[in-house]
Amino acid sequence: MTSIACPGFQAAGVHAGLKNNGAKDLGLIFSDVPAHVAGVFTTNRVKAAPVLLDMERVKTGRCRAILVNSRNANCCTGDRGMQDALAMGRAVSEALGLDENDVLVASTGVIGTPLPIEKIESAVPDLARSLTPQGFMDCSRAIMTTDTVPKLVHRQGALDGKNFHVTGLAKGSGMIAPNMATMLCFVCTDIQAEPVILRSMLLKSVQNSLNSIIIDGDTSTNDTTLVLANGLSGISLADSGCPQAFQTVLDEVLITLARELVRDAEGATKMVKVSVKGAMTPEDARAVAETVANSPLVKTAIFGEDANWGRIAAATGRAGILMDPGSLDIFFDDVQMVSNGLSCGAQTESAATAVLKQAEFSITIDLNAGSEEASVLTCDFSIDYVKINADYRS
Amino acid sequence: MTSIACPGFQAAGVHAGLKNNGAKDLGLIFSDVPAHVAGVFTTNRVKAAPVLLDMERVKTGRCRAILVNSRNANCCTGDRGMQDALAMGRAVSEALGLDENDVLVASTGVIGTPLPIEKIESAVPDLARSLTPQGFMDCSRAIMTTDTVPKLVHRQGALDGKNFHVTGLAKGSGMIAPNMATMLCFVCTDIQAEPVILRSMLLKSVQNSLNSIIIDGDTSTNDTTLVLANGLSGISLADSGCPQAFQTVLDEVLITLARELVRDAEGATKMVKVSVKGAMTPEDARAVAETVANSPLVKTAIFGEDANWGRIAAATGRAGILMDPGSLDIFFDDVQMVSNGLSCGAQTESAATAVLKQAEFSITIDLNAGSEEASVLTCDFSIDYVKINADYRS
Repeated sequence: MTSIACPGFQAAGVHAGLKNNGAKDLGLIFSDVPAHVAGVFTTNRVKAAPVLLDMERVKTGRCRAILVNSRNANCCTGDRGMQDALAMGRAVSEALGLDENDVLVASTGVIGTPLPIEKIESAVPDLARSLTPQGFMDCSRAIMTTDTVPKLVHRQGALDGKNFHVTGLAKGSGMIAPNMATMLCFVCTDIQAEPVILRSMLLKSVQNSLNSIIIDGDTSTNDTTLVLANGLSGISLADSGCPQAFQTVLDEVLITLARELVRDAEGATKMVKVSVKGAMTPEDARAVAETVANSPLVKTAIFGEDANWGRIAAATGRAGILMDPGSLDIFFDDVQMVSNGLSCGAQTESAATAVLKQAEFSITIDLNAGSEEASVLTCDFSIDYVKINADYRS
Repeated sequence: MTSIACPGFQAAGVHAGLKNNGAKDLGLIFSDVPAHVAGVFTTNRVKAAPVLLDMERVKTGRCRAILVNSRNANCCTGDRGMQDALAMGRAVSEALGLDENDVLVASTGVIGTPLPIEKIESAVPDLARSLTPQGFMDCSRAIMTTDTVPKLVHRQGALDGKNFHVTGLAKGSGMIAPNMATMLCFVCTDIQAEPVILRSMLLKSVQNSLNSIIIDGDTSTNDTTLVLANGLSGISLADSGCPQAFQTVLDEVLITLARELVRDAEGATKMVKVSVKGAMTPEDARAVAETVANSPLVKTAIFGEDANWGRIAAATGRAGILMDPGSLDIFFDDVQMVSNGLSCGAQTESAATAVLKQAEFSITIDLNAGSEEASVLTCDFSIDYVKINADYRS
């Protein structure tokens, strides 16, 4: 078994003819045995057909396979869209001899264009035949859109003297920020967990990973994160003395994928952690972190490697929280540029500029009002972001 | 009197040495007689010293002069910032023999750098000597920062058989969107109005003009809008049978200035009206209009002249309102691309693309859920926006 595989799972990716350049565009994940499943989905009121279908199907807590296509989001496609989502599931159930309700589907790409369902239906038998335990990389490639690299992570953990595995793959640019209308993430593990426990752990992991990255603030219609647990490790979370060990590994997989999404964000040249400390409430801390991470002025200044802390102060001030501007401290990595709301002097400028020249750094905002904190991972706003998104459909 | 003047007001603009290129950077507006004043200011918790000073001084309802500098926002400058704002007012009161409390001040530019107050103090006597009724254009130029053209509007109205005048000037890029930490707007009129009436009318006018434009969603620390009324027309709003006639002209001046701000927004190539109809509440309509107008994905698609209505649907869905995606209609000018949440077909694509090639057009979103509506003026998100803001301080 290679390091990306997860016992009892197989995956594959093929070219079904949706992408024009011959690249892989249809992926499949399969569990050899019935697996438990939990999912989190976009909060957008406009939800793609596959999202609506999966939200129903995950209620059973059971899943055997996930079929995913790129290039077309199957969103704003009405009744036909739902028929096509059902047809995707049916194609897999027929090819693999599964109950239709045990198949989940996902789509990513352009909104509002009907899915070329016949291309998908024709490709599924071949896709099913090419399933292998080593197929996760092919599947990762098949779900890429503007991604420049596939995102695939594997981790092992140990619990009660046995090993377990977690393999995760993702595409897109973030749960609260998908540039192109879709963040998809699928996680396979051989842990044994009831759906309700799986869901609670997934929600916790997502909050500090996929829900804490911001590319452009646009929430997708297709965001889907699914975790499948097939139990083959023989480790049962319900019976284990330390289920936290699994949570830690799941956290690590999702945080790593989240970081990879930000690093590969459209046009991004910098990855920046925005940390807020000293807030009165966790909500205050989060509001400031998100407002700063979303500010086009802050993000263009980062692109320009300009330590323009005034924009950070201004974004903090419009975050909708009670705050005292005279208590504000701002740091770039360890370089403090603002103390009690005032510049620490022109001599800090060159040190701060050196920090901004790095590919990765942190911005820390201390409100000095309490002890709560939050952080968000973001990227800069570059000329290439505009270029990529000005003609995405063409 | 030229068409830009307002009876009983004088203005001027000079180079005080704040801008490096010799351009005007210090402006003054003066009322020959005591005027009433009303103001609206930024909602940002981080407020520049001149904003804090003006918020106090407008409470008297009286004003004789406004001194404005560009290039430096006098924000996040602590006690010294307030001392400098007071010194700006004092310089004018001494030069013109006014009560210090009757002088308002405003600043725009970079945040966090102390004001070179001695340059301003040295320039004020000369500035005061150059006041003329025709000086509004010079004053408009003096408050420009990344603006490429001065924004100056004059309108006349008639009420009770007499004429009145309204002259307004502005700089920056919007009340809820100043790209560079400042939107300033000053309006002079010879109407006679009590401060409380003036304020109520100003709030009403601002709501549909300066508060309904979005460039980049960043709220400034220095936003200030002031209206001065010196009463020299002999028309008293309190005694008039039709004060609405004044409101109409004030609306027109502020809406015209707001349009000019959007047209001259940093890097903008398009001006787009985002109209939302059929909402259940006015707040719902406004939330959708603002979310769509703020979406980087929508704004980059506009820059790319791409009728990517899926991004508009997705932004609508994340606006935080209850909505039925299946009721959504979307138009570009008169071209309907979406009906009941579905594409009107590929044949509408070329007509919609033709609309997007125009410099000005509208996007209409009909929620078909009620009868409330709202609109917001916005612009595209261009490569030049990123270029301008990546190195603003240098």
